[in-house]
Amino acid sequence: MTNERDREKRAAARAALDYIEPGMTLGLGTGSTVDHFLEFLGERVAGGLSVRGVATSLRTAELAEGYGIPLLSLDETGGALDVVIDGADEVDRRLDMIKGGGGALLREKIVAESGRRGVFIADSTKLVDVLGAFPLPVEVVPFAANRLLPALKERGLSATLRARGGETFVTDNGNHIIDVLVETIEDPGGLHRELKAMTGVIETGLFVGIADVVLIGRGDGVETLTRAKD
Amino acid sequence: MTNERDREKRAAARAALDYIEPGMTLGLGTGSTVDHFLEFLGERVAGGLSVRGVATSLRTAELAEGYGIPLLSLDETGGALDVVIDGADEVDRRLDMIKGGGGALLREKIVAESGRRGVFIADSTKLVDVLGAFPLPVEVVPFAANRLLPALKERGLSATLRARGGETFVTDNGNHIIDVLVETIEDPGGLHRELKAMTGVIETGLFVGIADVVLIGRGDGVETLTRAKD
Repeated sequence: MTNERDREKRAAARAALDYIEPGMTLGLGTGSTVDHFLEFLGERVAGGLSVRGVATSLRTAELAEGYGIPLLSLDETGGALDVVIDGADEVDRRLDMIKGGGGALLREKIVAESGRRGVFIADSTKLVDVLGAFPLPVEVVPFAANRLLPALKERGLSATLRARGGETFVTDNGNHIIDVLVETIEDPGGLHRELKAMTGVIETGLFVGIADVVLIGRGDGVETLTRAKD
Repeated sequence: MTNERDREKRAAARAALDYIEPGMTLGLGTGSTVDHFLEFLGERVAGGLSVRGVATSLRTAELAEGYGIPLLSLDETGGALDVVIDGADEVDRRLDMIKGGGGALLREKIVAESGRRGVFIADSTKLVDVLGAFPLPVEVVPFAANRLLPALKERGLSATLRARGGETFVTDNGNHIIDVLVETIEDPGGLHRELKAMTGVIETGLFVGIADVVLIGRGDGVETLTRAKD
């Protein structure tokens, strides 16, 4: 990562603090930009801000605990979060996103959908005109993976089973990830529905209609994108 | 189980042999009716019939091995099966079905969709005018279960998390089952699509458009239902 991208991530992460109010229960995403947010949030908590968080990964849980941010489980919140802060691998100006490069897309989506407000933070390289340059992660049932690969190819989608260190990648939920390379996703909602309907597909990394605000670090500033009212 | 129902199951199971030809690769479902089929198939194999099977459960694999039926994995078949034989918890005259009372719905559906021909066998109590008296099993991601229960209730669906012996039931794939009680399912395909689209839902027990033939044991005979051509 260049220093410039890191500076943009920190700027976006800091701007997300504006959406946090005392007493809130927060969803805490996963990734390098969220790591910065946790650092800033920890400073506020040390200064007396009272909030609680639900972590989407072990990594985020450990960082949050280190910063003194109180954590609870999603079940303990009754499934209702005030604000969810997370990163994105790719985002367009309709606020549709691809997430899941790190393999935590299912937990991130469940937490994101539990938030009354979704605030996503990223550096400027993540903002694109059309989604698709980033391979779309799709979480699948292991037993179905070898059947889904040819089925995806029959639909004209290039797909590979994610591996790490020569072994098939396993998610926190014990599943596999198929990375689908579409290049230009003209209809993110339609592609999500098509993939999600396939037997053996658990979830896709397309986050459509979930973000309310996207904060893009750009140079020394932050660009704020908000969802157009339907 | 009454002797009458058992006799009907055996009649349906025996009738399924008519769909088996030498050299075929078979999908082998799970349940008490399939158990009878395995017994009959084993007799044929002992008599020289050459077939191979893919088992949908440990129970079926153990029975098949005991009967001398050669087994292989779905991956080894390249995902192509000649005929799949399985049971049903409920079936209507359009050959739509509810399956998964035993909790193996995901594996059964993946195997069933891999079959060029799907033959389902049941006693006469399983044939209904409208699906729904049997609770619809829905396999869900454990992390999402407590969020899905209220979401289903918001849609007017009565839903309970399946338990066994005081513990939450865990499927072969490490997931949970939510049993949805709909009573009368007017549009099986629509309900399946609605449920499958929910985040955290992996698969439903609605098998729509999968059966080609349903063999219903009735008294001393067998009623054969075949799919009307589209």
